[in-house]
Amino acid sequence: MKTFRKAITLHTRQKHAYVNVTSDVQKAIDESGVREGLCLVNSMHITSSIFINDDESGLHQDFAKWLEELAPHDPRPTAYAHHRTGEDNADAHMKRQIMEREVVVAITAGKLDFGPWEQIFYGEFDGQRDKKVLIKILGE
Amino acid sequence: MKTFRKAITLHTRQKHAYVNVTSDVQKAIDESGVREGLCLVNSMHITSSIFINDDESGLHQDFAKWLEELAPHDPRPTAYAHHRTGEDNADAHMKRQIMEREVVVAITAGKLDFGPWEQIFYGEFDGQRDKKVLIKILGE
Amino acid sequence: MKTFRKAITLHTRQKHAYVNVTSDVQKAIDESGVREGLCLVNSMHITSSIFINDDESGLHQDFAKWLEELAPHDPRPTAYAHHRTGEDNADAHMKRQIMEREVVVAITAGKLDFGPWEQIFYGEFDGQRDKKVLIKILGE
Repeated sequence: MKTFRKAITLHTRQKHAYVNVTSDVQKAIDESGVREGLCLVNSMHITSSIFINDDESGLHQDFAKWLEELAPHDPRPTAYAHHRTGEDNADAHMKRQIMEREVVVAITAGKLDFGPWEQIFYGEFDGQRDKKVLIKILGE
Repeated sequence: MKTFRKAITLHTRQKHAYVNVTSDVQKAIDESGVREGLCLVNSMHITSSIFINDDESGLHQDFAKWLEELAPHDPRPTAYAHHRTGEDNADAHMKRQIMEREVVVAITAGKLDFGPWEQIFYGEFDGQRDKKVLIKILGE
Repeated sequence: MKTFRKAITLHTRQKHAYVNVTSDVQKAIDESGVREGLCLVNSMHITSSIFINDDESGLHQDFAKWLEELAPHDPRPTAYAHHRTGEDNADAHMKRQIMEREVVVAITAGKLDFGPWEQIFYGEFDGQRDKKVLIKILGE
């Protein structure tokens, strides 16, 4: 049995952004030497997400607008109970619940075992600072 | 360590449908010979889900109505930015975010290690065509 | 390869509650002897969740209010199709979809491999009775 760990750092220019990290994950699988196994990819922060969906910029605009409707950004101290702590990002914690913390993906013959359109994204909802993504691989 | 892979194909008659795949997953575990381990079950498509919830048709009606409220189907080209590509299914990508891509389930003594009501479902939000579900098992 | 299984029982005083189970999960990892691997933590019930987010009571108030807006509790028999079965908790099944069934976490050097604020929570949406959380560990 082999295990492998790698953390990558992202820093988005926008507060709300989507970054395709599929090739980073495949690179980690290559480095691990694992041919058959499972790969966990998770955000190490609680205001951002890892999810699998389409690499299409229009859809990402739709996601951003939709998440803003479901959990509006409102930095006022009275807008959310969480803001009594001095934070202004309660909405980002909610957006991350919709968009997931992590994905677990199959590794088959050394490759991400994906359907035709699956791509792994980092979803940032409170960015403009360094954030880490963890990749942990288990297999042989 | 053993690994096992199997893909199953579903084709729903309706655009929006829920299919209980629990026995397919247990069958794959039986075929794998794994007695203790983890089993990943994921949709290989980005407009459908794998999730665990109750096998109760009323609840499934409630889910369908609720998802339609949260992310309404609207095929018009101007309804979603994603539709500028010619697609008409932006809502299905959103519904799948709520209902998850995948589940990871424990295998104990060769069986799905489940609570009393847990059942695995394929949730289809843009169906009427062939879709694949991946089962990947790791254990011993 | 080692595998380890443990179930813990929770019983919340409120219908809707959040319980930090991080130390229970770390304790299970200690008991397993696994130094490198993956740890699945899932609710064994379909009206409660396991998720990772911030241990901040204001945020938990925000979550509760937000989930109530997205999927309102309404025990009337006509409020949800699921209630025709005699149940009154359709909303709890929906809240659990937003808040996830499970997390998969990395184990590195015998510890939960976490970012600075990650904590594991049990989210209860139909409590006041015994519920089980499953911890399954795979690694070496």
